[in-house]
Amino acid sequence: MIVETFSTGDEIRSGTVIDTNAANIAQTMEEEGIEVVRHSCVGDNIKSIESVLREIGNRADVGIVTGGLGPTKDDVTSESAANAAGVKIVANPDAMKSVEDFFTSRNRDISESNRKQGMLPEGSECIYNPVGTAPGFQMKIGKCVFFFIPGVPFEMEKMLKDSVLPKIKDLKGISNKIHMVRTLVTFGLPEASVNERVSGLDAKFSDLKLGLRAKFPEIHVKLYAKGENKNKIDEQIESAISWIKEKLGDRILSTNNRSMEEVVGELLKNRNETIALAESCTGGLVSHWLTNVAGSSHYFLYSGVVYSNKAKINVLGVSSETINAYGAVHEETVKEMASRAREISGATYGLSTSGIAGPDGGTYEKPVGTVCIGLATKNDVKGYRFNFTYGGRRDMNKRIFAMTALEMLRMELLEIPDKERDLRRR
Amino acid sequence: MIVETFSTGDEIRSGTVIDTNAANIAQTMEEEGIEVVRHSCVGDNIKSIESVLREIGNRADVGIVTGGLGPTKDDVTSESAANAAGVKIVANPDAMKSVEDFFTSRNRDISESNRKQGMLPEGSECIYNPVGTAPGFQMKIGKCVFFFIPGVPFEMEKMLKDSVLPKIKDLKGISNKIHMVRTLVTFGLPEASVNERVSGLDAKFSDLKLGLRAKFPEIHVKLYAKGENKNKIDEQIESAISWIKEKLGDRILSTNNRSMEEVVGELLKNRNETIALAESCTGGLVSHWLTNVAGSSHYFLYSGVVYSNKAKINVLGVSSETINAYGAVHEETVKEMASRAREISGATYGLSTSGIAGPDGGTYEKPVGTVCIGLATKNDVKGYRFNFTYGGRRDMNKRIFAMTALEMLRMELLEIPDKERDLRRR
Repeated sequence: MIVETFSTGDEIRSGTVIDTNAANIAQTMEEEGIEVVRHSCVGDNIKSIESVLREIGNRADVGIVTGGLGPTKDDVTSESAANAAGVKIVANPDAMKSVEDFFTSRNRDISESNRKQGMLPEGSECIYNPVGTAPGFQMKIGKCVFFFIPGVPFEMEKMLKDSVLPKIKDLKGISNKIHMVRTLVTFGLPEASVNERVSGLDAKFSDLKLGLRAKFPEIHVKLYAKGENKNKIDEQIESAISWIKEKLGDRILSTNNRSMEEVVGELLKNRNETIALAESCTGGLVSHWLTNVAGSSHYFLYSGVVYSNKAKINVLGVSSETINAYGAVHEETVKEMASRAREISGATYGLSTSGIAGPDGGTYEKPVGTVCIGLATKNDVKGYRFNFTYGGRRDMNKRIFAMTALEMLRMELLEIPDKERDLRRR
Repeated sequence: MIVETFSTGDEIRSGTVIDTNAANIAQTMEEEGIEVVRHSCVGDNIKSIESVLREIGNRADVGIVTGGLGPTKDDVTSESAANAAGVKIVANPDAMKSVEDFFTSRNRDISESNRKQGMLPEGSECIYNPVGTAPGFQMKIGKCVFFFIPGVPFEMEKMLKDSVLPKIKDLKGISNKIHMVRTLVTFGLPEASVNERVSGLDAKFSDLKLGLRAKFPEIHVKLYAKGENKNKIDEQIESAISWIKEKLGDRILSTNNRSMEEVVGELLKNRNETIALAESCTGGLVSHWLTNVAGSSHYFLYSGVVYSNKAKINVLGVSSETINAYGAVHEETVKEMASRAREISGATYGLSTSGIAGPDGGTYEKPVGTVCIGLATKNDVKGYRFNFTYGGRRDMNKRIFAMTALEMLRMELLEIPDKERDLRRR
């Protein structure tokens, strides 16, 4: 089965928006053992879209098209599809219902421009959109069955998984083949090092395919398996995971695609412990991540985002002597920050960050990319210092600082001995 | 001039890596007034790459191809290009020098697999790579001039700007055409409403093209202009902006592509004022955004992420009576949170959030999507309540809650009268 994606829209064509949909669709298909062979993209132009639809219609069995289903005059995908198939645009009762339901359930009035979204190419079949105004549709052009869905990522994802994927599996026919993907999340080693360490896997486990994916600052190791016997696949995957564990050790955060904040949250929950933070350079990012996990209120008590020295002293209660003696970015200061966060909130652990995210503010001794991390426990308080070199990129520095802080906490929760906690050693 | 991009590689095809290169190239070209009309992508397959090169060779004037120039056997772009042009792969002295220079300058030995990178299609012209092992090359296939550069983003960017862009400008010849894009950022109206309000623009300003872009929860209005007289274009854009301002009023955050956090930051800076936060449901996201802006330490003093009631009471100093009487999600509670954040930090303003981000925790009276926002100023403290319906999606609720809080602050800083601050009114 030849599957292609086609992203439409000037924002994607012009690069204003990065096309995450194409990657997302390909990954979703791959997890079902379906390979997407080609991606195309053009702007909001009827002739261009029509022409690419015709090309794909000649080449592929399935086309997944995103974007251009909105209410504005820029949105010309339906019209282009009708042209490519040589049919008219007509009112589609199911599509109209999808639009109306959306507005009714939100107690909002439907606008004239939204009514346009109830018009689809003649003979096409509506794909209901439960989370947005734009209904999708399915129709054949040439030899290819096309699925048209919105470009808004969360609407796209929902409709892809709930409606499009089951239909594609039907088209593909019943297969006894089982497809599995397992994702191991790692942190602390560069992609090339992960690759070197696990490179023998393909040879050792012939039924598995290995894939690496950099999701800064994590590196994901993916295992793809295909076969008819579920037990055999499960066994292979478990053996491969054991093998990878030997190679990567505690650089593996999870073997089931769980993120750092989920892993740390689960460890805290299982231990019935709580966390409080004092964030300077990470500016709230550690708390934002931790609170992205549903149920985090069970273990996340407090974060003081103490950006100014004044806040560190007055709000958090760090002593001005410490800051004057050592400066804001120093092990001694973060140790006191972590202890104070722990004390004032009554949490089991206090975790703190202070560093230089850039682009300015670096010095010879403390260049941009320097971060100090403090970790206070019931019996102890530790201070760490790291330097990361991402060329003064503030957003990347904030991310790697926040991940490193959580990694220090994770190693504490796993009771990894102190001397094995230095990330630079690995 | 018709320009296309073509990304090669299994990691892009399979969605393991998101294709940022295509967007990056299109943006770089757009800044020079060159429109990229189409993007394609296939995996590391000689036949597929060859076939797409032939297609583009028939369609475009310029093709920019990324990826597949590395030292491994997966890297087949040079071979595919040679096939498409019907020539052989031969040793290229300039390419060999590019590879050798890279290793010599780093005191490293050149490996056999890297020597492969010194082989290029016959008749092609080498593009020197100062930052990586893979030299690029330029050659004609069909009627199209192709530039082949590495897929590693920072190598790609460097070679695009230093070598490829000047060559494309030469090909294009001297043009007096000036291209401009202006982005107006709006918040608080759905895309369809923005569209309806500005839909007369194209007719009124014939030299401008209008584009809308949803960047949740913002809607961006883009004006594209093309012409030979810079003053005339500037005039048209300024008139159009005045016209849009009449239609959208204070729903416009900026007319120069500045984000909410940049706009609020600049207002605070200009007024020489400061901000402190007390965040419950937004979990640190408001502070994360505000501190993403370089220089935010001038006006951002403190955020207390007080997720638990205990932290609200013990750390922030909200009275337990208030929380017992009204609950955590209530105007009275957020008013006290905002006042306390302001007082303990000494900031000009205190801003607070408390709500139900979901997916659980909603009640009939306070469903998921409910948020209360408090704003304390020198003379006053205000409480607002909103309900947003994004189907229990925690991440989206956090974003819209955080944006709404910043919007309340922005309206305060702009001294917009109280009665005009209700977003639901618009």
